[in-house]
Amino acid sequence: LSNGLTRTLANFAVQSRFEALPGPVRAHTVNAFLNWLGCVYGGCSEDAISIGCKVVAEEGGPPRASVIGRKLRTDAANAAFLNCISSSIQAFDDAHLPTVTHPSGPAAAALFAISETRPIDGEEFINALALGIELQCRLSNALVLPPSKIKLGFYMTGLTAPMGVAAAVGRLLKLDEQRMIWALGIASSQSAGFRAVHGTMSAHFRPGYAARAGIFAAMLAANGFDCATNALEAPNGFFDTYATDADLRRATARLGEDFEILANAYKPYPCGIVIHPTIDACLDIRQQLGPTTRISTVTLRVNPAALTLTGKRSPQTTLESHVSIYHWAAVALLTGKAGLGETRMDCICDQRISALRSTINAVPEAGLGSGEAIVEVTCEAGEKVTSHIEHARGSIDHPMTDEDLDRKFMIQVGTVLPVEKAAQLLRVARNLATLSHAGEQVAAALGN
Amino acid sequence: LSNGLTRTLANFAVQSRFEALPGPVRAHTVNAFLNWLGCVYGGCSEDAISIGCKVVAEEGGPPRASVIGRKLRTDAANAAFLNCISSSIQAFDDAHLPTVTHPSGPAAAALFAISETRPIDGEEFINALALGIELQCRLSNALVLPPSKIKLGFYMTGLTAPMGVAAAVGRLLKLDEQRMIWALGIASSQSAGFRAVHGTMSAHFRPGYAARAGIFAAMLAANGFDCATNALEAPNGFFDTYATDADLRRATARLGEDFEILANAYKPYPCGIVIHPTIDACLDIRQQLGPTTRISTVTLRVNPAALTLTGKRSPQTTLESHVSIYHWAAVALLTGKAGLGETRMDCICDQRISALRSTINAVPEAGLGSGEAIVEVTCEAGEKVTSHIEHARGSIDHPMTDEDLDRKFMIQVGTVLPVEKAAQLLRVARNLATLSHAGEQVAAALGN
Repeated sequence: LSNGLTRTLANFAVQSRFEALPGPVRAHTVNAFLNWLGCVYGGCSEDAISIGCKVVAEEGGPPRASVIGRKLRTDAANAAFLNCISSSIQAFDDAHLPTVTHPSGPAAAALFAISETRPIDGEEFINALALGIELQCRLSNALVLPPSKIKLGFYMTGLTAPMGVAAAVGRLLKLDEQRMIWALGIASSQSAGFRAVHGTMSAHFRPGYAARAGIFAAMLAANGFDCATNALEAPNGFFDTYATDADLRRATARLGEDFEILANAYKPYPCGIVIHPTIDACLDIRQQLGPTTRISTVTLRVNPAALTLTGKRSPQTTLESHVSIYHWAAVALLTGKAGLGETRMDCICDQRISALRSTINAVPEAGLGSGEAIVEVTCEAGEKVTSHIEHARGSIDHPMTDEDLDRKFMIQVGTVLPVEKAAQLLRVARNLATLSHAGEQVAAALGN
Repeated sequence: LSNGLTRTLANFAVQSRFEALPGPVRAHTVNAFLNWLGCVYGGCSEDAISIGCKVVAEEGGPPRASVIGRKLRTDAANAAFLNCISSSIQAFDDAHLPTVTHPSGPAAAALFAISETRPIDGEEFINALALGIELQCRLSNALVLPPSKIKLGFYMTGLTAPMGVAAAVGRLLKLDEQRMIWALGIASSQSAGFRAVHGTMSAHFRPGYAARAGIFAAMLAANGFDCATNALEAPNGFFDTYATDADLRRATARLGEDFEILANAYKPYPCGIVIHPTIDACLDIRQQLGPTTRISTVTLRVNPAALTLTGKRSPQTTLESHVSIYHWAAVALLTGKAGLGETRMDCICDQRISALRSTINAVPEAGLGSGEAIVEVTCEAGEKVTSHIEHARGSIDHPMTDEDLDRKFMIQVGTVLPVEKAAQLLRVARNLATLSHAGEQVAAALGN
């Protein structure tokens, strides 16, 4: 049944069209774009972007695509690289919950850059973005879900985003099936990334690099650069090499009928999504106790992945705070807040917060879901308070509403643009489906 | 003992200098550069390069570096990408025998491109190239030699060349230890590639992409883009993720005392190096039998890796001929030749050759070394002839001489340049150590 996986996905990509997308998928895809664009603004002033802009300004190609929030235009692949890093670097981007893949950043960044270089209407854009997200998530499902065995160290977005991007960009470039097959193969030849670099700029390099890789793959394939016709499923191919016993049917089952974007979540808090139920529980306890109660002990009972992925006890930098469940528990309990302010150095270095952080006990419990957490707090006066979150805010069972997303967007974009310009950009992005030249019209509203 | 691997290698890179290289290592490194440059000319007219040039001409950056043999200049990373593919695409590039890594293409292509953008003298160039080759081979040793267990599908050059290139380019950019550590980490975040695409253009995409990846890593790190300080050895880091039980001491044992380039081999035949002993044996038998004897049966007894890597029975393209041990056995027995002419379509499609190819019996024998083969031929008249090659031509025990390499260079460069210009380029390359501005002086002799 694995026979022909690459061709099946390529055929799906080539045939994909806006009209075939169910209404909720269209709406989710617009939200994915909107959330991505807001996150780009949120992150575009970070040091990593300044460094990337310096290199790209010296080495990049013709100025056809915008580096959002910076006074720089460059070639599509380099613009996508930087815009994707911006969208990732505050750990505020979306996440596909079954695989903890971040599906929108690479595809949206690539598609936006390409759409600045040629007329792509809003419906084509939405279709391509839905396609990129769909393939990235489905390939991630096959890699990471049982019966597949894969090294925990592999960073899923780095492995599967290149193919999602290649398919999405390839769709805009109107590749035929043969060239789409090659594009997927060239993309998978760039699948890379492991988790040890989390908490550094390089954690965000990898999705950015995946956007570059996918664009480059699609462009080469469009011009006839060939590849094996079965790169994904062949012996010594992508799945055979990166995983063991992967069930490739996960990548194609009910393709075009079920949509993985419906399992994609938007973050209310700027940190690893596996931390979110713990934050909800700590905010709930803070609400119960009020601001003056003194806390004695804190125990977090969480899904084991939360500690594997975000178990940094003492973050030293903003980027390390993204992967410190201890930091967020402490800060939520002590301040009642969990926003961008709580990733800043003054908060990370705050003595009260770091003191509590160092005493928190975290217990992995395999019986708890990835969106679930139980937090137990003992007060100095002896009182015990427990909060059990079954579905974190932002998760599929407790999703961010459109209004939540618009509010998040306005805060993020507002860090760069005046509020009226941010509101205007929000209107354009919300009306993505109606745009006749998506890249040009969104770019005009960027104020770049 | 694995503790600090990334730092140890970074420190070695930062401290490396031409004066510390033993004479044979300097001489080998010049040969590596010469062989690389000849292979670039050999491959630069291939379709894959035409396609790559088209994309790079549209998307590439400022014209600071030469795409050799083509009328194109572009940014360093894209020039290195294309020149490395040229050097790889005829399967005529060098190979590190213990790991079947191809160490010179990515590093030489990257260094040549960078050296066109700033004054680098010949000794600095040689030191950086020796460094890049050394790290790539040592990381490959640790990944692939016992006790390490690694999926057979992983393509070693794609996994380790990014780090070799990053170190080599980082040395030219005069990175300090901290930034060199980051460069290695960013490079390893791009380690990618599997074997299923062998026999297609994408097989050669991967070393080219490694050259790009390493340059990009060094440039980002030079400007302060950070990474983990232990990306290679950390839990969930490069080795932990890509292999199991790797002995990281293999990467550092006798660093600066033993040099892996001394185990690097230059190819006399344009195909996978594991095919070479079989070609030697077949040419020997052809010599014994003469051109008119009719062959009845052929049995190849070879190291198992020869069949795993190059077991394609019926090649349909030039690129597939590189991985068909059957093709080379047939063509050597029937024509007495094994050069670039034997990779052309008229030879691949020749009825006599394809008829013999289809009847050859190949037997894997674990007792045979990777440079060893036994070929047994039965003639129609009943006569049996056997040839046992213990060390293939071009291997460490039977190396190509400087004169062999010069002759190979002249043939390859002669496919593009007039003979006097090729001879002039040969003189410049042979005198690499004496050049004051290596990039400028070699570029002036390219006739680009």
